[in-house]
Amino acid sequence: MKKVWGGAFSESSNDLVDRFGQSIESDLNFWQEDIIGSVAHARMLGEVGIITKEEADILIRGLEKIHEEGPDFLHLDVEDVHTAIEIRLKELVGDVGGKLHTARSRNDQVATDTRLYVHNQLIEVQDLIKKLQGLLLRKGEEFQGAIMPGYTHQQRAQPITLGFHLMAHFWALQRHGWRAERLFELANYSPLGAAALAGTSFPIDREMTAKELGFIAPIPNALDATSDRSYILDTLHLCALIMLDLSRISQELVLYSGREFAFVKLSDTVTTGSSIMPQKRNPDMAELIRGRTARAVSNWVTLAGVMKGLPLGYNRDTQEDKPPLFDSLRKVKDSIELVFMMIDTADWQLDRMATTVRGDFSTATDLADYLAAQGMPFREAHELVGQVVRGCDSLGCALEDLTEAQLAQIAPGVPKEALSVLQPEDSVRRRESLGAPGPNAMATQLAHARRMLEAVGFPKVA
Amino acid sequence: MKKVWGGAFSESSNDLVDRFGQSIESDLNFWQEDIIGSVAHARMLGEVGIITKEEADILIRGLEKIHEEGPDFLHLDVEDVHTAIEIRLKELVGDVGGKLHTARSRNDQVATDTRLYVHNQLIEVQDLIKKLQGLLLRKGEEFQGAIMPGYTHQQRAQPITLGFHLMAHFWALQRHGWRAERLFELANYSPLGAAALAGTSFPIDREMTAKELGFIAPIPNALDATSDRSYILDTLHLCALIMLDLSRISQELVLYSGREFAFVKLSDTVTTGSSIMPQKRNPDMAELIRGRTARAVSNWVTLAGVMKGLPLGYNRDTQEDKPPLFDSLRKVKDSIELVFMMIDTADWQLDRMATTVRGDFSTATDLADYLAAQGMPFREAHELVGQVVRGCDSLGCALEDLTEAQLAQIAPGVPKEALSVLQPEDSVRRRESLGAPGPNAMATQLAHARRMLEAVGFPKVA
Amino acid sequence: MKKVWGGAFSESSNDLVDRFGQSIESDLNFWQEDIIGSVAHARMLGEVGIITKEEADILIRGLEKIHEEGPDFLHLDVEDVHTAIEIRLKELVGDVGGKLHTARSRNDQVATDTRLYVHNQLIEVQDLIKKLQGLLLRKGEEFQGAIMPGYTHQQRAQPITLGFHLMAHFWALQRHGWRAERLFELANYSPLGAAALAGTSFPIDREMTAKELGFIAPIPNALDATSDRSYILDTLHLCALIMLDLSRISQELVLYSGREFAFVKLSDTVTTGSSIMPQKRNPDMAELIRGRTARAVSNWVTLAGVMKGLPLGYNRDTQEDKPPLFDSLRKVKDSIELVFMMIDTADWQLDRMATTVRGDFSTATDLADYLAAQGMPFREAHELVGQVVRGCDSLGCALEDLTEAQLAQIAPGVPKEALSVLQPEDSVRRRESLGAPGPNAMATQLAHARRMLEAVGFPKVA
Amino acid sequence: MKKVWGGAFSESSNDLVDRFGQSIESDLNFWQEDIIGSVAHARMLGEVGIITKEEADILIRGLEKIHEEGPDFLHLDVEDVHTAIEIRLKELVGDVGGKLHTARSRNDQVATDTRLYVHNQLIEVQDLIKKLQGLLLRKGEEFQGAIMPGYTHQQRAQPITLGFHLMAHFWALQRHGWRAERLFELANYSPLGAAALAGTSFPIDREMTAKELGFIAPIPNALDATSDRSYILDTLHLCALIMLDLSRISQELVLYSGREFAFVKLSDTVTTGSSIMPQKRNPDMAELIRGRTARAVSNWVTLAGVMKGLPLGYNRDTQEDKPPLFDSLRKVKDSIELVFMMIDTADWQLDRMATTVRGDFSTATDLADYLAAQGMPFREAHELVGQVVRGCDSLGCALEDLTEAQLAQIAPGVPKEALSVLQPEDSVRRRESLGAPGPNAMATQLAHARRMLEAVGFPKVA
Repeated sequence: MKKVWGGAFSESSNDLVDRFGQSIESDLNFWQEDIIGSVAHARMLGEVGIITKEEADILIRGLEKIHEEGPDFLHLDVEDVHTAIEIRLKELVGDVGGKLHTARSRNDQVATDTRLYVHNQLIEVQDLIKKLQGLLLRKGEEFQGAIMPGYTHQQRAQPITLGFHLMAHFWALQRHGWRAERLFELANYSPLGAAALAGTSFPIDREMTAKELGFIAPIPNALDATSDRSYILDTLHLCALIMLDLSRISQELVLYSGREFAFVKLSDTVTTGSSIMPQKRNPDMAELIRGRTARAVSNWVTLAGVMKGLPLGYNRDTQEDKPPLFDSLRKVKDSIELVFMMIDTADWQLDRMATTVRGDFSTATDLADYLAAQGMPFREAHELVGQVVRGCDSLGCALEDLTEAQLAQIAPGVPKEALSVLQPEDSVRRRESLGAPGPNAMATQLAHARRMLEAVGFPKVA
Repeated sequence: MKKVWGGAFSESSNDLVDRFGQSIESDLNFWQEDIIGSVAHARMLGEVGIITKEEADILIRGLEKIHEEGPDFLHLDVEDVHTAIEIRLKELVGDVGGKLHTARSRNDQVATDTRLYVHNQLIEVQDLIKKLQGLLLRKGEEFQGAIMPGYTHQQRAQPITLGFHLMAHFWALQRHGWRAERLFELANYSPLGAAALAGTSFPIDREMTAKELGFIAPIPNALDATSDRSYILDTLHLCALIMLDLSRISQELVLYSGREFAFVKLSDTVTTGSSIMPQKRNPDMAELIRGRTARAVSNWVTLAGVMKGLPLGYNRDTQEDKPPLFDSLRKVKDSIELVFMMIDTADWQLDRMATTVRGDFSTATDLADYLAAQGMPFREAHELVGQVVRGCDSLGCALEDLTEAQLAQIAPGVPKEALSVLQPEDSVRRRESLGAPGPNAMATQLAHARRMLEAVGFPKVA
Repeated sequence: MKKVWGGAFSESSNDLVDRFGQSIESDLNFWQEDIIGSVAHARMLGEVGIITKEEADILIRGLEKIHEEGPDFLHLDVEDVHTAIEIRLKELVGDVGGKLHTARSRNDQVATDTRLYVHNQLIEVQDLIKKLQGLLLRKGEEFQGAIMPGYTHQQRAQPITLGFHLMAHFWALQRHGWRAERLFELANYSPLGAAALAGTSFPIDREMTAKELGFIAPIPNALDATSDRSYILDTLHLCALIMLDLSRISQELVLYSGREFAFVKLSDTVTTGSSIMPQKRNPDMAELIRGRTARAVSNWVTLAGVMKGLPLGYNRDTQEDKPPLFDSLRKVKDSIELVFMMIDTADWQLDRMATTVRGDFSTATDLADYLAAQGMPFREAHELVGQVVRGCDSLGCALEDLTEAQLAQIAPGVPKEALSVLQPEDSVRRRESLGAPGPNAMATQLAHARRMLEAVGFPKVA
Repeated sequence: MKKVWGGAFSESSNDLVDRFGQSIESDLNFWQEDIIGSVAHARMLGEVGIITKEEADILIRGLEKIHEEGPDFLHLDVEDVHTAIEIRLKELVGDVGGKLHTARSRNDQVATDTRLYVHNQLIEVQDLIKKLQGLLLRKGEEFQGAIMPGYTHQQRAQPITLGFHLMAHFWALQRHGWRAERLFELANYSPLGAAALAGTSFPIDREMTAKELGFIAPIPNALDATSDRSYILDTLHLCALIMLDLSRISQELVLYSGREFAFVKLSDTVTTGSSIMPQKRNPDMAELIRGRTARAVSNWVTLAGVMKGLPLGYNRDTQEDKPPLFDSLRKVKDSIELVFMMIDTADWQLDRMATTVRGDFSTATDLADYLAAQGMPFREAHELVGQVVRGCDSLGCALEDLTEAQLAQIAPGVPKEALSVLQPEDSVRRRESLGAPGPNAMATQLAHARRMLEAVGFPKVA
């Protein structure tokens, strides 16, 4: 393995040290960002006269050539991607290649590459979020009338609709999109020119490189520019948050696709069979997303652990910031797409869901509310409903099938008019408070969501 | 322990179940937010006619009385603070107290309390951040000319100034303030009226309660409103990020206050002695901040672990969201103040720091840059500087004390004019790139920081 | 707040510093261990003549008095429990109380207290594990013939029995018991006498105190004795492992107690109602265990974060080791007992479980195995079974209800004798490989488990 | 990508699903264990007559051929290493290859592979621990008389020796070795024959395969055998514990090799230069170990997160158990070796260390102990020493250089004989309590350590 440092050293290093220090397997991920950053640096060096314009042009053409060739032409048995590109550059342009590193250090170079990479990835993530939101909204509209049980404590609680349920995930994604936009704003500042930690005496122009690279402005303190990794922690946090929500959807799909719930059939594409149980339809993609959410969480833990108590100035510990970053972003992008596929091709068993809400007392709340609306103190109404429920249990009768006579027998204090609120469909229909699953409230919500979806970016709403 | 539920149950629960389920020790933290939320709910119930205005007034006066009395009048041997306040309310206003729970569930109530609490805490955190930034800027100005070594790999690298170093922490805090503002915007939406999970058939007005409570708007989906905990994860992430930066300052203070560095004497207030070693001045506050950063990190891990794979709808698991929240916010507020105290009373040993940068080759980079500026390819210059450094080592001579004769002997390729760039003070003085510690660059940075500090809130800059 | 240090200091510390540094709220947990450790230290000081026997007796009597009085007589507005006990001791015995601290430091004192505490807690945890194992074995025996579906990918896979399923948890607990025993052996060494970090010039007898306190031997290196926290990490790891398994049981109970599975009714004691939905029977204890498992996991993360990169010798950061320790042990003990209660009082719906395994092709594997046993290559058999399953699906017929004619129609390659392996009860009955749910294999397993249960301690088996 | 399942499916899966589900990149790590497990299974199938002896021989010879060829002959564009080996086997032996999967499932197969892998890795880890212990003991003996400062709160506290300090790390490693041995005992049980979750109706002999594979016995419950991952968590915990201790050594080396401490020069092999600062000697290996400790910690977090709340029976989530396992073991083995290299080649600056303990009052404790030994209550002695320290400070005199006259002036209560205890060398010499750095105590400790090192395995001592 070749090294670009080593001037003051006489001993040669051994293979373990090389392997342990190597990051190229990981940082090859941003080979393009490294080239783009170097082009901006080279152009600036030429513009301000630190090198000649001719030298700058040679460097830029060399770098562009490397970009065209692609990573297959790089020597990969080196420490990192910066070295690989530098070596290739010298092969292409000769000694002048050495001038590229003027007024720059590995410290600001790697920080620049990482910020450019985060910048590009956040755009991709936002696109995927929008795509999944579009699907959820479409399904939310399609299934706004499809009755299903709503759960609390994973026990059936009240009737809702499938459209209402799917829309809850829409709004979670809206927040993630908004967070991604904010993070983009926060992270998109240029460390280039901070050099090792204290800037440089060369008359560089940091505004120029910042502008060329699409950054908002240079970071105002060079030590901060090379020490800060908080934007990576933000990115890992965002990835973890998204994965946590995808894991919740996945858990729902795992449960709902089991024979006990039988609310949905997942398509063959996203399920697998078993090598020994031919009848199985395993929700592997949902399980893997759920499992990998744990890795997305621990990727944040890794970097938090690296940064704790680290004095300012570059420390080699932070080489460990990139594997989690690359891994979390890859997992998030894959997982959003897989959730899209699962929901897009899901075959919802609407009849089964509608049947399920019957016979489980899920309109007991409606009865309590009805009594309260008649002026009965809520706690009293609550007691009385308990009496009705116990009565139904002993009669072996569903709440929504109760007759006037039965009601009079088990709970004489409840007026017979109350029977009119016990059908699940009616329950949903009457829930018209803002954000509830009732038809008008739901129409309002869907229209709201459509405005959000069609807006540029992610307006803040919830 | 009294319980408000239990209608359908015949068995009594035992003490372990009660203790395990109890959250009052923790959620007593937001007893005020619980009352304020209830007042808004009661007023709305009266306004829209779900209860009479007279009933609403009774409820509100009762709640205000509880607020005046303070928590000492609450029965604390109950499950949670909501129950404690409800019981007290009934003691004060009688049966009408039962009507407060109309069209509301514990699920939207606790979500409302938590969001109000986060709202209030974020304001406090922002104030503390501004306060610490003000101090750092003052010290940054005071010490902008105080030479000290700058480190990379925890090895001396290049001369910087103490003011420049302290300002790196200023900008980290600016980002935290900006994040806190954004989080405030994101979290400040009202779940009140979402009821258990699906809204209600009562004609409530969620806009009215949202407005009274200072929320921007109601959350548009009731299931999302009761299931979402991502804003708590955001808060825990923010707390962890702030603590990580405070742990970095703390680590620097621990190191710098040791006899080996001897850069700073911490005041007696923030250090402690030893019970057996009377001469010790232990940086306990810095150590505790460093140690408790690990708890702030793991508080995020706790909630991430709770939420993974949790189906939508309230699940009791999420009771575990509040202890981390209260703990992280308490630790962050205390730690910011303690860092303030440590820095405010720190006695910097300026002479020691200035002396330290001599004799450690920390201007070698300046020499390399000088040679490169003369047109020498950077890698060549680098080799030549290595030769000079090795030469100094064998002569037992500091780089900045090199004579022309010595230079000619050890590195004939280096022109004697190069000697002019080897003094640490000159090194700093020439580092005038944007964000560097040179006097003009530093003046620009300080002016920039002052604008940020004096702005309302936390403008985004870096 | 009073402090025992302060000799070299002139300034007074303020309230925040006091509060931030205070640990008494947490370390009051081992007030008894602190006294017991001090008694052993005092006795040894007297025995070897560092203090007189009379002084030792006075100290010991004073400490015993404090133990009798209980913590209510301690002043709790001090830094830590050691100080509280020391102050009380001086109140009781006067100036001689100051001699207790001879040849001891706070560093070895707190390490001794913590190891004694871990020692005592591990005994309690082992007792609780045995208790829960006893219940599981009893239920395993009771339900060894109760057919239920076995799941993989949370999809029904093959018929098993409830007894077989419960016994899987028995063996997990056996491992935890074995781990607890090993940890007891590892941790049970004495740090007392290590003093601050380097032992002492007093002629103490560490063997004597180690023996009196029930430790196996003194820790052989004083710096290690005061720096090591790995036994606490081991304890937190053990607690996390136990909680993870309890969370798996809890998740099963949450699912199985829902109306979709309806495999079990949990007793009123361990479930709660809803304040608005009177019919709900929420598995709150199971949910809380599941949620608090996340805290048990993050308690380990906290201490790992504290210890990373900490140089040897006492560092104040490690004050943060005790809150996680106390918390995890409390949660584990409560949770084992709650799982005991849940399983002890569970009302298993055996008919429902038995019915469930019908109609879900869960004996398809048996068919494949049958064909393979006839000499058919496994993959071929697998294909053929797939054909049968698809045939049943199109006929709308359960696998176990297939007639000879139907079989001949949909899969002529399958001999009619194969029909004899398709009943779920037969499937279980024929699974007689070691560790399988078949009756003889199960009898062997239960006998094995009984030997383990009745053994002293936790023999290693799996 | 080829798949071995798919019987009941008509649709083809797409590339994302394939890539997301693929584990071969990771599980290729145990290709040898997979073959060895299969050989044992095949032999058993032949022995008990499930297949013919001839078929068994063909399978075994095929598997041995694959082992000889090495992984280069495997098709790697498949889902996992099991599939790759199965496909190759069929290429080599034809259709009979399909019989290998009789009476076995992917679930017990992967569990077997993983346990064999852990088994083999633990042996390697134990060897490396012994190797590093041997070095530490050698250095401990070499430097048992080399005075250096001992630290608490990262402040100089008392004089110790370098040998004493290095031996503290020896004992930490002894515990890790003991843990590894125990884990080996715990994990070394055979899941083979558990099949998918419920054993099999084939007359397999699990004792036979367990014995051939070097397992102690079969796991007694098939569901537990396929559901348990706690031994992997144990392994990740052990790796994290070892890394935490290596991170502490690394942190010490980073600090000690800086110019402020200057206690040690690390060899060129384990340090690197800077691309811009030729004089730097960066302790990169120590920094990387410190940083990667965070990953070892988070690898445990990953699997804990995966397992929480997972019902029994194989779930695809657990595919995420292997990347952390492979990664942690790789990092631990590399890091032990690198720490070996760093310490083996370290050039300790003994004079510098010895000088350092002078002038920092580090024998103040000795003075306090001396006074206490004269019968003065400890707290009084403590006050008096404080007076001496303050006196020295005002005189500008080191404690160990104090004259009788000076002492009489600043602290008349201290007898002049006390001066005899103030030399650092004397301080160490008198610390002869068990485990202290005094020469006799140290000789005892070194002899003890040598017995431990020369023992087979890791006897428990501390």
